[in-house]
Order: sequence, then C-alpha cells, then structure tokens
Amino acid sequence: MTLLLHLADFNERRWADGFAAALPGMRVVTRADAYDPDEIDYIFIWKPASDAFAGLNRLKAILSLGAGVDALLRNPSRPAGVPIVRFMDEDLTQRMSDYIVANVSMHQRLATRFKRDQAARRWSQLYPAPAWDTTVGIMGLGKLGLDAIARLQALSYRLRGWSRSDKQIEGVEVFVGQVAFDDFLSGTDILVNLLPLTAETQGILNYDTFSRLRRDGVDGWGPVIVNAGRGGHQREADIVRALEDGTLKAASLDVFEVEPLPQTSPLWEMDNVFITPHIAAASSERTGVAYFSRVIRDFEAGLPLPNVVDQQRGY
Amino acid sequence: MTLLLHLADFNERRWADGFAAALPGMRVVTRADAYDPDEIDYIFIWKPASDAFAGLNRLKAILSLGAGVDALLRNPSRPAGVPIVRFMDEDLTQRMSDYIVANVSMHQRLATRFKRDQAARRWSQLYPAPAWDTTVGIMGLGKLGLDAIARLQALSYRLRGWSRSDKQIEGVEVFVGQVAFDDFLSGTDILVNLLPLTAETQGILNYDTFSRLRRDGVDGWGPVIVNAGRGGHQREADIVRALEDGTLKAASLDVFEVEPLPQTSPLWEMDNVFITPHIAAASSERTGVAYFSRVIRDFEAGLPLPNVVDQQRGY
Repeated sequence: MTLLLHLADFNERRWADGFAAALPGMRVVTRADAYDPDEIDYIFIWKPASDAFAGLNRLKAILSLGAGVDALLRNPSRPAGVPIVRFMDEDLTQRMSDYIVANVSMHQRLATRFKRDQAARRWSQLYPAPAWDTTVGIMGLGKLGLDAIARLQALSYRLRGWSRSDKQIEGVEVFVGQVAFDDFLSGTDILVNLLPLTAETQGILNYDTFSRLRRDGVDGWGPVIVNAGRGGHQREADIVRALEDGTLKAASLDVFEVEPLPQTSPLWEMDNVFITPHIAAASSERTGVAYFSRVIRDFEAGLPLPNVVDQQRGY
Repeated sequence: MTLLLHLADFNERRWADGFAAALPGMRVVTRADAYDPDEIDYIFIWKPASDAFAGLNRLKAILSLGAGVDALLRNPSRPAGVPIVRFMDEDLTQRMSDYIVANVSMHQRLATRFKRDQAARRWSQLYPAPAWDTTVGIMGLGKLGLDAIARLQALSYRLRGWSRSDKQIEGVEVFVGQVAFDDFLSGTDILVNLLPLTAETQGILNYDTFSRLRRDGVDGWGPVIVNAGRGGHQREADIVRALEDGTLKAASLDVFEVEPLPQTSPLWEMDNVFITPHIAAASSERTGVAYFSRVIRDFEAGLPLPNVVDQQRGY
C-alpha cells in the first residue's frame, strides 16, 4: 500500500516521515522518489500541479490538506470517480474561529478608526457599541461557520446566518437562499464570509452586496466585511471603491483574487483594511498527519471516509 | 430629598432629566442650579473638582459613575465617613470584556506584525499560535476580571490569574500575592491589567515586570501587554524601552499616566502600540441612570448599598 505526497510550498520529506511513523506497513513516497504510478493508493495533496493525477489509475481516495477544494475540482488531470476527503479537524476549526473572533471584535471596537486617530495624535473619545448591540452576519453555515457562531455567541454578539439550505441554530436567525439575501444583509453590521467557492458564490462580495448592509453604527460607523473564504468571492475593485466612498468602513481580508496580493494593489496602503497573507486557518503538520493517518487506517478497516466532497455541489 | 450631579465632561442637564424621570419625588439639581448644600442627600460624580464636596454635610452616599475610585479617594474635600458606591453593571462589564477580548485576540493573531508587513507590501506567511496554545494572564480577579476570563475561556485560551487574595476559578490557575508574581508572569504570553490602582499596584507595569514574561511565541513572537486599568499602573518610559528592545512585542493601552496622552509622547507613532483614548468601558447614560436610580430607591427602602468601596483597601 502506497501513499504519495504532493505538497506545493511544504516540506514533503518531513510530512512523509510523519506519515511513515504514523502508518506502519504503508509505503510513503514524495514526488522526488521513484515509484510506479500503479502502486499509488492514496494521494495527499496541497495545491496540485495540473498533471498531478496523471497515471494514477488505482487511487482509492484523494486526501486534500485544504478545506477549500474549488481549485482541486477544476484540476484537469483529476480522476472523476475518486472520492475527495477534505481536511477538517479541531485545530483547523479553532484557528479559523480565532481569526474570525479577532477580526470581528477588532472592528466592533473600531480598531481602524482609533488607529487613524493615533496616526494623527488625536485624542477623540468615542464609545464603541457593545457586542450585544452588534449584529454579525455569517455567510456559510458549515462546520467552520457553526464553530465561529458558538464562539461569538459566548461574547454576546447578535448573530444571523445565510446558507443555501435551511439550518436550525439556537439563537441565530437563519436566512436561506438568494431570496432571503437582502433581508440577511439589511440587518448585518459585520459581514463574515465562510462560504465555499462555487459558481453561485463567485464574486458575492461586490459593491451591490456592500450597499445593502446596515449602516447605523456609533457616530456614523458603518458596515465592515471579513473575508476568510476565497479570493474568488471578492471583487477587489469594488472593495476599494466601497472603502473609499464610505459604503464600507473597514475590511479584513485574508484571501485575494491573485495571491500573493500584487505589489500594485491599492489595498496595501488603505488604513481601513487589515491584510493577512492567507493564514487565517492552517493545518499543522502534527494535526494533518494525525487526521489523514486515521482516515486511511479507518478506511482500510472498512469504515466510511469522513468529510467527503460532494463533487456536484462543489464542496 | 435631593440628588446633586457633578459630572465633568458630560451633559449634566441630560443626565438630570434622566434621573428626574426615573426617581419621582426626588429633586435633581446640577452645579448650575440654585440649591442649599444642606439639602443634598446624594451626590453623583464623575471626575469631581477638588472642592466638589465642600459644604455637603448631610450626604448619605457618594455615587461614582466610574468603576475606578483612586482619584476620588484622594479628593481633599471628600467627607471620610460617607459610603462610596461605584458603578458596576452588566453594560460596563460587557464593554470591558469586549475591549479585553478584542485586544487579546488581535495580539494573539499577531495584528501589529501583519500590519507592519502590510505597510511594507510584504506577503510573509506565518501561522499564529491557536488560542488553546496561548496563555492569557489576568491581573485583578474582581467582577471585570472574572467576566473577561469567562469570555476568553469560551474562546479556548489558557488562563491564569493573579490577585491579592485567593480565588477558586474553574479552569484557571490562580497565583496569590507578591510571592507568586514571578511564577505568574513566567507562564504568561499576554498580560492583561484590570487591577485597582492602590499604593501596591502603582507602576506595576514596568520594565522588570515585562522582562519576566514568557517569550517563546511563534517565530520569535514575544510577550504583549493590555492595560485597561489605570494610567498610574504603567511606566510609559519603560513600555517604550521594552517595545523598542523587543522585551515586549506589542501593547494595547487604553489609559495613560497623563490624559489626554501628551502630543510629545513617543507612543503615538509606535506601530506596535494600539492606543485608545480611555474608552475601554464606559457607562452609558441609560444604564448609569437605571443603576443609580435603583441604588437610591433600594437604599431609601432600607436595603444595603451595593458595590461599596472599602476605603482602607482602596477599591
């Protein structure tokens, strides 16, 4: 039994050693090793090259280190019938919730407004609205969305959610589908994107969306967006325009249409944007190896694969 | 029965109208009104002038809009025997916890580090330690400290507390008194000050304290302080020095030795300091009027005063 590692940007050898230690009896190879494509049972991938799957005719499963699989689904060499398992564990979820909580609470406390005052050496007292008077709207109510909601509820935020299918979540007003999108936006102060990237959600963070958000904050403070989804969800030209004309007051962006964010992007020097380099949630080597070793062991023992991507739906 | 309002910086007339509506039968006067000092039963104060209490010989209680009473206790005209009730309600507590959560989580996510990268248009991936691998040390375990702890626990932070007297708090390692201060600091990544200002706590945020904090964060990231207590707790020259030489990596300061923070302070332009103009927690007019109206009604009905300051202890 053989596991092939195909990890752009990562140290494949170190991960291979981790898997070899966790899976006695499994042969673990990297792209640098000699192997017969027909012997590969599992491929563990991060940012696969376009020919990553060429010749792998006996794959049992594709194991994706990323939680988002939009690029993988578009990979031309991907064998259509093979199940894709995406990474989803407590560590990834915790890190994503950390990012959401930090950025939501930072904006609730008007961080970019006070930072601008600081730059001007201006002492101007203004009392931010408390969490219980601030509504956070979460787009995407999967595992990550639900965990972020639970954390924000413990901080007393008001919460609403938007999703393609109906969900019952204690204490959260849930809006379902395109028909309810406007209603969802009209009561949202801080908009958080955790959607999967699909044909329907592509470009959803655009000027029209921003203009429908609630704008009745303290001292004219208005809507804020936090994008922890994908760069493909956002129209960066619209974000710049909305931040310049006050339609948005601030934004936290962890993902971008082109990554790394080009040097020429006007976002870099906007003082009401908080940029992070796609690091909101990462899978650590320790937790990635532990998770996928268990997946393989369980599957070989006859148990079903967890977190299998619905390839029709796209996530 | 008469209530006198003495509120620096606030609109006394508006507050007076609020109290008059909430307390039928009570005469409510401001400093601008004509009144006989001997008729004043209660004084409601914010930043009292040095002669604020002169002639008020029949006071039943002093009602302090601030939760911190250090300046009030030093007021030379204050009648020594009169009980002081300090403001403490859910709204104030919520706002303070909002501030603590936002600033702790912002620093856990290395906000000032990423902001520096943004200013340099630098895309440099670094994965912050998750909350469960970050220890927040809270100095001061009164009502505000306990609420902040409960919120931070819901986010999975590791927590430790330091206090003058022993407390039992589920899931929190509590260190008691000066003898345990070093141990407390040595395991703390993010130090939060919520202490009352007394002779013992004056200047406690100094270089020696900073140098004892834990320093083993991601990629050399080191200790951070968040001061939501009093300006008198901190030595600003020490903070500047520690931030410059790396003993501290970042700081959030809501209070200052002199307020407003003087234009000449080097803190304004430090990019690893987050300055707010003493707005961490404020009492709103609505909640302030509701709280102190109830205090007066209950006291007149024979119930004890709540949140009375221990004038020996100083808080």
